[in-house]
Amino acid sequence: MLTDMHTNRSPQVAGQDCLLIRNVRPPEADALDVWIQAGRFAAFGRDLAVPTGCAVEDGGDALLLPGLVEGHTHLDKTMWGLPWYRNEVGPLLTDKIHNERSFRAASGHDAGTQSLGLARAFLAHGTTRLRTHVDIDTQGGLAHLDGVLRTRAMMGPLQEIQVVAFPQSGLLCRPGTADLLDRAMVQGADVLGGLDPCAIDGDPVASLDALFAIADRRGCPVDIHLHEPGAMGAFSLGLILDRTQALGLRGKVAISHAFCLGEVPDRERDALLARMADLGVVVITTAAPSRVVPSLMACRAAGVTVVGGNDGIRDTWTPYGLPDMLERAMLIGLKYNLRRDDELALALDCVTGAAARGLGFADHGLAVGCRADAVLVDARTVAEAVVARPPRRCVLAAGRIVARGGVLLSQAVAA
Amino acid sequence: MLTDMHTNRSPQVAGQDCLLIRNVRPPEADALDVWIQAGRFAAFGRDLAVPTGCAVEDGGDALLLPGLVEGHTHLDKTMWGLPWYRNEVGPLLTDKIHNERSFRAASGHDAGTQSLGLARAFLAHGTTRLRTHVDIDTQGGLAHLDGVLRTRAMMGPLQEIQVVAFPQSGLLCRPGTADLLDRAMVQGADVLGGLDPCAIDGDPVASLDALFAIADRRGCPVDIHLHEPGAMGAFSLGLILDRTQALGLRGKVAISHAFCLGEVPDRERDALLARMADLGVVVITTAAPSRVVPSLMACRAAGVTVVGGNDGIRDTWTPYGLPDMLERAMLIGLKYNLRRDDELALALDCVTGAAARGLGFADHGLAVGCRADAVLVDARTVAEAVVARPPRRCVLAAGRIVARGGVLLSQAVAA
Repeated sequence: MLTDMHTNRSPQVAGQDCLLIRNVRPPEADALDVWIQAGRFAAFGRDLAVPTGCAVEDGGDALLLPGLVEGHTHLDKTMWGLPWYRNEVGPLLTDKIHNERSFRAASGHDAGTQSLGLARAFLAHGTTRLRTHVDIDTQGGLAHLDGVLRTRAMMGPLQEIQVVAFPQSGLLCRPGTADLLDRAMVQGADVLGGLDPCAIDGDPVASLDALFAIADRRGCPVDIHLHEPGAMGAFSLGLILDRTQALGLRGKVAISHAFCLGEVPDRERDALLARMADLGVVVITTAAPSRVVPSLMACRAAGVTVVGGNDGIRDTWTPYGLPDMLERAMLIGLKYNLRRDDELALALDCVTGAAARGLGFADHGLAVGCRADAVLVDARTVAEAVVARPPRRCVLAAGRIVARGGVLLSQAVAA
Repeated sequence: MLTDMHTNRSPQVAGQDCLLIRNVRPPEADALDVWIQAGRFAAFGRDLAVPTGCAVEDGGDALLLPGLVEGHTHLDKTMWGLPWYRNEVGPLLTDKIHNERSFRAASGHDAGTQSLGLARAFLAHGTTRLRTHVDIDTQGGLAHLDGVLRTRAMMGPLQEIQVVAFPQSGLLCRPGTADLLDRAMVQGADVLGGLDPCAIDGDPVASLDALFAIADRRGCPVDIHLHEPGAMGAFSLGLILDRTQALGLRGKVAISHAFCLGEVPDRERDALLARMADLGVVVITTAAPSRVVPSLMACRAAGVTVVGGNDGIRDTWTPYGLPDMLERAMLIGLKYNLRRDDELALALDCVTGAAARGLGFADHGLAVGCRADAVLVDARTVAEAVVARPPRRCVLAAGRIVARGGVLLSQAVAA
């Protein structure tokens, strides 16, 4: 994970945005100093000399983790920071979809304000890269997208946000949605989203053809919510893989949830995983305690990257959630019964290295040349950080200290 | 849940240990005052007059929850408060059992000190009743029991602790253990524990006969760890129910984990649940995210009480866990996909009312005459308290304020 660990070269004069952090412990390494220059890691080593003019931070022997990565959330839906929402919604997926649209129409829910509040809370807890789905439908049009694009701009270089244009109410089943998705990509969405082509759209071939036509036209990555269970989900997944292959979208497609991979027989699952590995298709999971989910170990063994995400946080769908990827790593660890220290490192990987690789966030990690995103926590090991979810001693984003003790520094991030 | 809610009678002169808490909100009720006298709730009502000499606490419009109940933990095993234990243990149940015995022999682990530290942490987070299993085996003898009985004595009236004499290494398979269990009951254990009569002891009939002979002789309740899966577990459970019935132990038997109830076909499960309901046998669950667990709704529908518990916290078995029953309620909610406010009240019930009923903790609840155990949190509703797990504004135990902000008050509980 670390390169140039034992160099003690240091510059003579500090450049722009120079920061030296003394006495921190990267995972499985001894304490060292970290030199950051112009937003990137410039050196790791023992007793680095302080360049003239460089700010110095005492790391206090804290554990140094890379910046945390949220792979799947819905910033636009959240009611984070608002009074408690009493959930009286029915049990079906469609109950939740319809309830949310009615709630929005009645409440004047503001996706811009809400997404900014939650993005800031994520940053305060160490998340420096984040993929969020944004609802696009024929009722709200692109209003949510506009709000979240403003949030993306405001978070600027401190928190890299990927915006997924997501047809929450279906694609074909609500005519006009495909055009809206296409416009969303033109207006600045980063990723094209999809949703259950059988269970919601009712016509998997036509639905996926429509979706992939947009991806082909816009040359964009794709991230599909696939809740469909068992054989139905595996069938849809096969259709997705066919189109990924046919259109040359290798390394650009993600499947969110993919419950079916936890439900079909192992032989069928392994055949799908082999195709996914070959096509660079990643799995994004919340590791939901209430569901059968794709096997982390089977995915890793097959070469399929597994990314962790919270899904919605405190919205009309779910009352649960914290903008804390260490808590999500703990839930991943609990779901996959990861108890050994080396196993818990895999849980953290789902919200750090593997997540950055799987989602295409560049220059992530604790290595010279990477973006200087990091989290300092008082913990002896990665495993302790995951299970204890300690307060964030400080958060670095693009080389700047942006939060201490879970609170954003006002000079770092404007409200 | 509340009785005498709207009385505003109040005493003229305060008796011993009088406390008036102003302006708190019981679940689903308007703000009111609570009068506590001699360790018990004496009245709930609006604008109660302050008796002369009575202490007054401003509740600050906090949510008033009953004292939290831990149904299944292992205070004696914990390394809470000690340096991080690097877990490198193998995957089998027997790997964990053998590793723990070797670790103890080498480390000089002190069950008295460790159990006291964790019991205090539980109290600081609002747990005023707690059932703990204590390892009894032919290597350690009754040393762990001695330590935990000291902890029980030191926690005194503030935290009611039930001690289960638990044959962690097996009963028949380690000769001498049955005698130790019998001695443990004589020395002050409250409940007789058991463990997988097929998978660990290898002779379910002989194992359960030996166990129930002690229960019959000592007239004590029984709590059996049943990890055995599917048909094997259901077979053992049937044998347990036979003996519960034959010995007239109605209302005195609990099954911890009972994974088999989540695994056998519904018809077989329902037949077992019907017998359990008839015999007053309760289920105690951690709602483990990694396992299939008994259905909360099927148990409730059948009339079987479901109690929540953490199991071990930060020990050689597991790195996970916090002494916080609101976090356990959240994990129960996540496991059973409880999203509506009325559903989340069921998750809290597993660690409050249902737990107290199922385990036989008397006088629990927010009602006149009950032991004045309570937790004040800043939350609008029970659902918010469960998902947000807010800091405990204050904890009352037997009518005394024993903790504020998650920290025990030194005058309330000696270290």
